[in-house]
Amino acid sequence: MVGELKMVFAVRRDLDLGKGKIAAQVAHAAVSCALRSMERQRDKFDEWMRQGQKKIVVKVPGIEDIIRIREKAASMGIIFEVVTDAGLTQTEPGTVTCIGLGPDSSERLDTITGMYHLL
Amino acid sequence: MVGELKMVFAVRRDLDLGKGKIAAQVAHAAVSCALRSMERQRDKFDEWMRQGQKKIVVKVPGIEDIIRIREKAASMGIIFEVVTDAGLTQTEPGTVTCIGLGPDSSERLDTITGMYHLL
Repeated sequence: MVGELKMVFAVRRDLDLGKGKIAAQVAHAAVSCALRSMERQRDKFDEWMRQGQKKIVVKVPGIEDIIRIREKAASMGIIFEVVTDAGLTQTEPGTVTCIGLGPDSSERLDTITGMYHLL
Repeated sequence: MVGELKMVFAVRRDLDLGKGKIAAQVAHAAVSCALRSMERQRDKFDEWMRQGQKKIVVKVPGIEDIIRIREKAASMGIIFEVVTDAGLTQTEPGTVTCIGLGPDSSERLDTITGMYHLL
């Protein structure tokens, strides 16, 4: 039996980004994670697509959370993508805005981001 | 010479969706458009990735705009994906929330969505 697979996106709430900016940053993470999983974890990618490519967006207090999430994901072999904004508007150049994780099992991802609230 | 390529996402503002919901819907469109362009318009996909996968998010008044955008994109051979929300939260099941376009040239896309404001 295969459990639920999802992607999770953790967005910094301390930057006070606008709706469109957040959407573009999360979409960037989603495309990068999808392409990477196609190459490296094809079974998970295919099953995630078959299940309807579920996505969850949560908010985190700041950069320390992004760093913690990235380290945990790396140690668990979960695909991730940290997104850095070009900084033409709203942020300083090179500002880390969010991290995307997966696709991977909900159980595994929830051990990393389950404590955060939905954005 | 190759011009700028981008994806454009047009989000309905009449639904009053939350930030996280919008991000997930736009990310869904982005992944679907990316995969479709990989298959059907590989040169555009590769060049868009090489340029840094630019994305623009605009807001449109309602469903009539999504329909008009879809028809225009289809007639111009521009890849598109209309996103329908599962409707578990915030919307009725099957509600069309946004449309993703491209990647394609900025000039071609601007003839379809250039009149809308950024979200």
